[in-house]
Amino acid sequence: MEIKQYIEENRDRFLEELFELIRIPSISSETAHKEDMYRAAEKWKELLLNAGVDRAEVMETTGHPVVFAEKILDKQFPTVLVYGHMDVMPADPLDLWETDPFEPVVRDGKIWARGADDDKGQSFMHLKAFEYLLKNNQLRCNVKFLIEGEEEIGSEHLPEFCEKHKELLKGDVILVSDTSMLAPNVPSITTGLRGLAYWQVEVTGPNRDLHSGIYGGAVANPVNVLAQMIGSLIDDNGHITIPGFYDDVLEVSHEERALMAEAPFDEEEYKKAIGVKELQGEKGFTTPERTGIRPSFDVCGIWGGYTGEGAKTILPSKAYAKLSSRLVPNQDYNKIAQQFIDFFQSIAPKAVEVKVNTLHGGQAYVCPIDMPAYRAAEKAFLQTYGKRPVPVRSGGSIPIISAFEQILGMKSILMGFGLNSDAIHSPNENYPLEQFFKGIETISYFYEYFAQENK
Amino acid sequence: MEIKQYIEENRDRFLEELFELIRIPSISSETAHKEDMYRAAEKWKELLLNAGVDRAEVMETTGHPVVFAEKILDKQFPTVLVYGHMDVMPADPLDLWETDPFEPVVRDGKIWARGADDDKGQSFMHLKAFEYLLKNNQLRCNVKFLIEGEEEIGSEHLPEFCEKHKELLKGDVILVSDTSMLAPNVPSITTGLRGLAYWQVEVTGPNRDLHSGIYGGAVANPVNVLAQMIGSLIDDNGHITIPGFYDDVLEVSHEERALMAEAPFDEEEYKKAIGVKELQGEKGFTTPERTGIRPSFDVCGIWGGYTGEGAKTILPSKAYAKLSSRLVPNQDYNKIAQQFIDFFQSIAPKAVEVKVNTLHGGQAYVCPIDMPAYRAAEKAFLQTYGKRPVPVRSGGSIPIISAFEQILGMKSILMGFGLNSDAIHSPNENYPLEQFFKGIETISYFYEYFAQENK
Repeated sequence: MEIKQYIEENRDRFLEELFELIRIPSISSETAHKEDMYRAAEKWKELLLNAGVDRAEVMETTGHPVVFAEKILDKQFPTVLVYGHMDVMPADPLDLWETDPFEPVVRDGKIWARGADDDKGQSFMHLKAFEYLLKNNQLRCNVKFLIEGEEEIGSEHLPEFCEKHKELLKGDVILVSDTSMLAPNVPSITTGLRGLAYWQVEVTGPNRDLHSGIYGGAVANPVNVLAQMIGSLIDDNGHITIPGFYDDVLEVSHEERALMAEAPFDEEEYKKAIGVKELQGEKGFTTPERTGIRPSFDVCGIWGGYTGEGAKTILPSKAYAKLSSRLVPNQDYNKIAQQFIDFFQSIAPKAVEVKVNTLHGGQAYVCPIDMPAYRAAEKAFLQTYGKRPVPVRSGGSIPIISAFEQILGMKSILMGFGLNSDAIHSPNENYPLEQFFKGIETISYFYEYFAQENK
Repeated sequence: MEIKQYIEENRDRFLEELFELIRIPSISSETAHKEDMYRAAEKWKELLLNAGVDRAEVMETTGHPVVFAEKILDKQFPTVLVYGHMDVMPADPLDLWETDPFEPVVRDGKIWARGADDDKGQSFMHLKAFEYLLKNNQLRCNVKFLIEGEEEIGSEHLPEFCEKHKELLKGDVILVSDTSMLAPNVPSITTGLRGLAYWQVEVTGPNRDLHSGIYGGAVANPVNVLAQMIGSLIDDNGHITIPGFYDDVLEVSHEERALMAEAPFDEEEYKKAIGVKELQGEKGFTTPERTGIRPSFDVCGIWGGYTGEGAKTILPSKAYAKLSSRLVPNQDYNKIAQQFIDFFQSIAPKAVEVKVNTLHGGQAYVCPIDMPAYRAAEKAFLQTYGKRPVPVRSGGSIPIISAFEQILGMKSILMGFGLNSDAIHSPNENYPLEQFFKGIETISYFYEYFAQENK
């Protein structure tokens, strides 16, 4: 049976199985959802066993559990390690969702739910491509699955797990769908990922909220101070001011930048899609360069003082912020994390106390376009879409990808089927059915071409 | 009967009556407590009638109700208008309170509750001084009471009420206890109040929270932008940078500053009490000057993006802040409010949208130390404490005080018995019993001396 026919015949079952997975609110960052991580893992184990793996196990890490499964057909076959994650981002602000984030619905040809794309929807495609190939006796690769539960919080305990289980995870390439394509009709393969450093800072002024009249003007206000400190981290040219921050940045050649500029990009459409009048970023770089080859620095959250209704005239005791920096190849996140801490402490006035905690981080990654898995992926996309995929550098981070390379000595191939409009990490996350089904199709072709490349 | 004996004999009843008032959570800023404002007003009416006024009424305003009462003994007597407020600040953060904010307790010689000082405890002293004088046939003044419900939200509708009821409120002086003394053994009278302007700002970047990897570096982050904008409002010398902000500031002469410097002030004690290592403020001014005669600019609250547990990698859509400025005599709050709006809009990059709302405001106030009511208050303090009170400029604002002067043509005399350690507007607000009872005593003497001054 052809893959397209198999999808057609099993379409409703695929969706129902995916929805069962989505209904489990496996939010890795919130301790209240700890049990849901186990429920999601057990569900994955069940789905993998039903798809035909030899073995599937929920395995402990120091943090949330992982699911490992494998189908070893022949020692002579190349081995593909499929990586995905079962955890999702928090769904708040809940009031901005049009439907329940954990009760998936299909509307306008899309699945709407937290995790519909990132990464439940995308990782699920691998399960179904595998099921098809196995049931139709077309699989010429050994397949291993590694589904983790901490991707959205920096995969903190997965490197340790990989160190411990090197032999178990051994393979020829890691196959991942956790990225996006340029457009529904412009297939692309992500050849670069940005690294990430993430901090939480706490600024303490007086030991309690003070009356802003009685003390205002004489006592340092921690919110004013934090604002001033954050404000000083980026200069008028959009440069990050942390000393040494750019020292290791791999500068991209003019030729490569010219090549990158050929990828389709419509600035007006881009602005319209996110509802802004003007874009803003580092001077001397285009928008795709700013997210693809340059580091960034964003406040992900800030809070302090009175945030309720009306006016409360206080000089707050504390102010907090969550800060993150996206890094590019060669920037070491540990070094950057420390550079930030040192700098942030150095610019703190003595009238306040500043604490900085590094929450997580990861290295950037580059995938060479001449390796067998890349060529196999290229052919697979060509077969589905009739177009050669464009190699692109993504602004996002999957910190574990560079850790895999370091620990397991394996490169990853990032065949993502998401779209920019999927609103991952945002309210109303969605995933078009067309991407979902074409993804299953493309992945099934990948195995075929990858087996050929390895003959 | 002497006042001291009367207090001694009625001590428990006074406290129980006050506690009934405190138990009503009359938080004027929160719509959920709208009914509590009426409950508090009815309680005041009952207390005033029991104390012996001729009439007491709960009267409507465009906002929360006010209570008016009067005792007219003789047209030849001078008339004192007692002003107080029955509303309180919100009690959050609730987890920092050692006992329920709306269930008063006496511990370590203090009343602990929201409103224990500000202003339920302080305004209640007037009720009891009045009750004593009337019952003991010692009252030689006519007395009117005006207890409002919107002081903590800027007394928005009281000026309108005053305009409408000029005749009803007519008197010779307004008597208020809503300020502090320098120390338990250092009586003082507040001769100046700062004005206030209060704004809420909203900065909007993209139309939804974005993935900080995919967009970070290319799209203006509203929290980064807001931080930068707030950071630029105060320069390295502690000067507020809003153009024209200092134009109308009444500069205080070197002589007056020298006089002010004679008031007892222990910087080490001050720092210790609020738990800071260093003080920070406008260059060239002392701490009492910074709060007494100079304007200030504080962020009262800030929020935006992800503020939950762990790390969420977003580029937020919106950021908010509540900002306030304390003003000094001659600075017009309407003018300052507009100057800020104009400046804040002018420094906003085009990549974001900025909205500014003025929440409330009020003018600063100065009380001349040679008017009859001031002299009467001075003698009253001298009789209770054995010391002449120090005239001080307070950093706080009671916007309605300058409005009274403007509309009713009456000066106010600010006989406050609070202490800096009362933690008004903060968790664990408290009011020492000694201040409470000495306040009642001092106020009773005031009427005696004020009647003499007016003979």
